[in-house]
Amino acid sequence: MNAKNDRHRVLVDAIEKRISTNFYDSSFALSDSVLTELVRLATRAPTAFNLQNWRFIAVRTQEAKKKLWEATGCQPKVLESSATFIICGQLPDHSVLAERLRSSVDAGFMPAAISVQWVQGADALYSERPQMQRDEAVRSAVFGAATLMFAAAAHDLATGAMVGFDPDKVAQEFGLGPNEVPVLLMTVGTAAPGNWPQKPRRPLREVLVFA
Amino acid sequence: MNAKNDRHRVLVDAIEKRISTNFYDSSFALSDSVLTELVRLATRAPTAFNLQNWRFIAVRTQEAKKKLWEATGCQPKVLESSATFIICGQLPDHSVLAERLRSSVDAGFMPAAISVQWVQGADALYSERPQMQRDEAVRSAVFGAATLMFAAAAHDLATGAMVGFDPDKVAQEFGLGPNEVPVLLMTVGTAAPGNWPQKPRRPLREVLVFA
Repeated sequence: MNAKNDRHRVLVDAIEKRISTNFYDSSFALSDSVLTELVRLATRAPTAFNLQNWRFIAVRTQEAKKKLWEATGCQPKVLESSATFIICGQLPDHSVLAERLRSSVDAGFMPAAISVQWVQGADALYSERPQMQRDEAVRSAVFGAATLMFAAAAHDLATGAMVGFDPDKVAQEFGLGPNEVPVLLMTVGTAAPGNWPQKPRRPLREVLVFA
Repeated sequence: MNAKNDRHRVLVDAIEKRISTNFYDSSFALSDSVLTELVRLATRAPTAFNLQNWRFIAVRTQEAKKKLWEATGCQPKVLESSATFIICGQLPDHSVLAERLRSSVDAGFMPAAISVQWVQGADALYSERPQMQRDEAVRSAVFGAATLMFAAAAHDLATGAMVGFDPDKVAQEFGLGPNEVPVLLMTVGTAAPGNWPQKPRRPLREVLVFA
């Protein structure tokens, strides 16, 4: 029972103590191996049909930070955090799905016929439906981003999601493909003093109904 | 050090052991107080400007489940799970933001001038920009959904995100407003035997680059 209670407390703490970090300790660097581990965990997030239609760009050199900083209207946290991930969603393309599912078929739990069905399902859901494609790019990227926040918490790292940036500039400076949407930025590092607490939330009666 | 290692392990386990649950123990019911606690934690997720532009509909009666099941092309997990949340994003509206930020101003950490600036920022970012509004509705709902997954893990509950449903039918049957997008469904309950493991992921070299 103690282990179970501890587990509950750790997970609830990670949710309740997360803040959108604005001030970072600029002397703190993160190794590429830690950044890689964060992305390894982020990509355990779910995606529709297991499409994994995402890409993570870890911006951590001074030169690349400077470019990204300019695309965010010069927000200091992009320079001061250890790294900022550009989290991109990709417009789903059913033609890549059979290859993405092959490891599940090879592992023996997914019947090959299901893989074929899913490819047909993805074709029906996305083909010639640009808004649905865009929604899916955003959904996948945000599931990855949210999971990356918890991965960072596991490493005692602070995070902050950002949507205030020029997507065209980001796409151009960082070489995004025509099928890629820069859905959000995620700063990562060690918090400096002076950050706000988690902001109060709306009363639950405004956001939850039962049916 | 042991507490720190334990915390790391609990969070990494929650990420690595999460599966998209397909088969649920249909005899297991969840109380409204547990469902409320899951949403309380889900709404600790970040949203742009702390807009909290979301709504959660907890579908748990037989009658409501039946309606939702029909809107999903009759997927059994909607009937067999304890509940399914319809997670809606709301198109952001800067005119509600001052009220949403008032508790942060009243708490003393957010200067009133910042609240005014944020309202102006939200006006500039969203007004007359329907695609940006829709993206933000999807982003907020998915951050909420992903956090709900971890909240469920804290309660030893299984989850499964679903995008295969008729959004118009869901909007009509469950009374969504014209500003609300049903972004995804999230089933919650106790897993039955027979679920697949977490599916293998793409190699990191395909999804991560450094800059």
